[in-house]
Amino acid sequence: MTAQSSRTLVKNLAALEDGPVTVSGWVETVRDQKKVQFVVLRDESGAVQLVNPRTEETEAVAASISGLAQGSFITVTGELKHDERVKLGGIEVKLATLEVVAAAIPETPISDETGIDKRMDWRFLDLRRPEQNLVFRVQTTLEHAWRTYWVEHDFIEIHTPKLMASASESRAELFEVDYFDGKAYLAQSPQFFKQMAQPAGFGKVFEVGPAFRADPSFTSRHATEFTSVDSEISWIDSHEDVMKLHEELMVAGFTAVKEKHGDEIKALFGVDIEVPTTPFPRIPLAEAKEIVASRGYVVPRDDADMDPEGERQIAAYVKETFGHDFVFLTDYHASIRPFYHMRHADDVTLTNSYDLVYNGVEISTGAQREHRVEVLIEQAREKGLDPEELEFYLDFFRYGVPPHGGFGMGLSRVLMLMLHQTNLREVVYLFRGPTRLTP
Amino acid sequence: MTAQSSRTLVKNLAALEDGPVTVSGWVETVRDQKKVQFVVLRDESGAVQLVNPRTEETEAVAASISGLAQGSFITVTGELKHDERVKLGGIEVKLATLEVVAAAIPETPISDETGIDKRMDWRFLDLRRPEQNLVFRVQTTLEHAWRTYWVEHDFIEIHTPKLMASASESRAELFEVDYFDGKAYLAQSPQFFKQMAQPAGFGKVFEVGPAFRADPSFTSRHATEFTSVDSEISWIDSHEDVMKLHEELMVAGFTAVKEKHGDEIKALFGVDIEVPTTPFPRIPLAEAKEIVASRGYVVPRDDADMDPEGERQIAAYVKETFGHDFVFLTDYHASIRPFYHMRHADDVTLTNSYDLVYNGVEISTGAQREHRVEVLIEQAREKGLDPEELEFYLDFFRYGVPPHGGFGMGLSRVLMLMLHQTNLREVVYLFRGPTRLTP
Repeated sequence: MTAQSSRTLVKNLAALEDGPVTVSGWVETVRDQKKVQFVVLRDESGAVQLVNPRTEETEAVAASISGLAQGSFITVTGELKHDERVKLGGIEVKLATLEVVAAAIPETPISDETGIDKRMDWRFLDLRRPEQNLVFRVQTTLEHAWRTYWVEHDFIEIHTPKLMASASESRAELFEVDYFDGKAYLAQSPQFFKQMAQPAGFGKVFEVGPAFRADPSFTSRHATEFTSVDSEISWIDSHEDVMKLHEELMVAGFTAVKEKHGDEIKALFGVDIEVPTTPFPRIPLAEAKEIVASRGYVVPRDDADMDPEGERQIAAYVKETFGHDFVFLTDYHASIRPFYHMRHADDVTLTNSYDLVYNGVEISTGAQREHRVEVLIEQAREKGLDPEELEFYLDFFRYGVPPHGGFGMGLSRVLMLMLHQTNLREVVYLFRGPTRLTP
Repeated sequence: MTAQSSRTLVKNLAALEDGPVTVSGWVETVRDQKKVQFVVLRDESGAVQLVNPRTEETEAVAASISGLAQGSFITVTGELKHDERVKLGGIEVKLATLEVVAAAIPETPISDETGIDKRMDWRFLDLRRPEQNLVFRVQTTLEHAWRTYWVEHDFIEIHTPKLMASASESRAELFEVDYFDGKAYLAQSPQFFKQMAQPAGFGKVFEVGPAFRADPSFTSRHATEFTSVDSEISWIDSHEDVMKLHEELMVAGFTAVKEKHGDEIKALFGVDIEVPTTPFPRIPLAEAKEIVASRGYVVPRDDADMDPEGERQIAAYVKETFGHDFVFLTDYHASIRPFYHMRHADDVTLTNSYDLVYNGVEISTGAQREHRVEVLIEQAREKGLDPEELEFYLDFFRYGVPPHGGFGMGLSRVLMLMLHQTNLREVVYLFRGPTRLTP
């Protein structure tokens, strides 16, 4: 019998009858008292109290416990006992044997009070906290709900290359790679390649994968590498079709998370997960700026764009007025959107695009794409881009392409806002920033 | 009503009664005859025949058809008619209207006879072939079946960073990135970071994501960027636990593919998908080499490793002897395995490791990892590595870590061998090689 098959996960102990069990995990705390010893053992599923009354018989185990360093991984056998007086889940395990499988060195470099930067240095220890474990179980559930939605709706999953011969978004935030005798660049988004699925006749596609931005800024919500959630669909009439897909995905994801982790999220983060109602409110950006201004905040930007405080204000307005955590800001000015966004037929200063704002922060940008190659070339020129450098991309549109659109969304931003965290670093497995490449 | 909601997918036409329909897709062929015109329209789900008998009434549509360039995307309305004489699915659509949504330029750069390299130049057109479309629907189903298995077995999905401060496998095939004022490297595998999930107490994890190898070789089965399928689990006794997980995953994936695409794979590739039985045959590498030698093939290598012909030979032996398409080659010599593979307790020249060979080609490497830090350091030194450069990785083992192991598998290799293709380029969305960075 292997450890895999003989050990019981902590979360499954409560359902067992009193009797012999084997449990494996790490030592969270030790209380080494004169007459009795207590160890809290945690595994990937929860924590349980181990107890060892000191007698002559239990001396060997007692000595092991006295020498236990916090964080050590151990396998124990003993008698499971249900006892309502035990605070931790109403069960405990009276020890028979204790094996130290891998001893930790006694000094633990971080504690609950340690600041975020040092915790990042010791991320593998930081992730042992139940809150952190929950973050990534929520992430797993969220992604699986999205993928299940996509698969059930006949989307094709693609893996687009992250090595490119040119920029996909802007030359400003581009990482350069030594590529044999030449240069390559890291994809800033799967934009061009997910669009390629449209002339390829794939119809509807999705991808969850890394994207890279050489962004030197140090904010609580930017990273140089992030997980981008992308989808792109054919035969749309406008960005409205993309928003419909987008809100259905959010409902599917939030429903799954609430069902599977709602109680635990409430217990550990104090947050009630709410499944949003559809349709989400939609507000044209120009109108949103007026609303924000009427609340006394004038966005201090020279261009037509929103700013973070403006997003918070419009979200507050939407919450007060519609009781909704999400809002689509639509019809962004062409001057602040990429060349590949389609513009209104009757007003070329506006685009068929949107940002999705959740709990006051932008989590996604979506749009209908311009699929008429002459218009696309014109819009590229207007943005100061050289169409010759975009030849491989422009070819996608020369051999027939259906009208299409899609969105890109930051996975960790969704998690951060869902769990009311204020720093992206708390919800990323291993954060990457301008001065952070390790561990 | 949007195009999204009003159009009918071709695959759904056969189930409809005769009557008015709207269909959107691209022009695969045109037969422009004197008395009647035929167009084969294809969309993401299949192909259907459009028919236009030439009369005075249909002159406008007739003119559109005569001017149609192959590959153009069109939306048509017309009367669906079931007619057993129509070879293509027993249905046709008698045209009422035809709208050219995006005209293709008339010259199509590739044909069915075009060689693979030029087809790669025009991958977005190459992908329109039904075989290619099927490859990526099979990929979608395969991945979703794996992820569903993982999720149902409480694995956590992780996204490990692709930007690293050091090499994860070897310094030889490492891509270097300009990272602000310093350097970063592209991850050759998620090895170190998926192992990090073990001291983090995540228990069981998986990841599907890109990996990068600066491998200058031009074979039919290597790429500089590939999609790596990874899993890592705690509390194993040996690599046997990893192989058990691995074979259960393969069964889950092949079952789903056979069920959803078996008939189509048979029709387009002439391949019968077989769901493998478990357990897969396991043969220690040394024994495999003896078997191969007894068949008359002596592996021409100085080290203890297999070579591609040896893998084909042992696969042929396994197929003849056990009727199985898969074989685990186990217990590789320590000299040809990375420093982090655990060695046998009773013979340190052998590792607790395996390669999985499918249809004669290696698709995966798995192993139990060495989790005792002193042994790990010793093995690193023995391989000529400097433990100081590995400090961040070695720390993972100093604060407690359970025994663990896992595998990494090339997604496209599985697809290639499953569909009896001889070149990886046929089953990768966009191939990347030493001289291939576009499109």
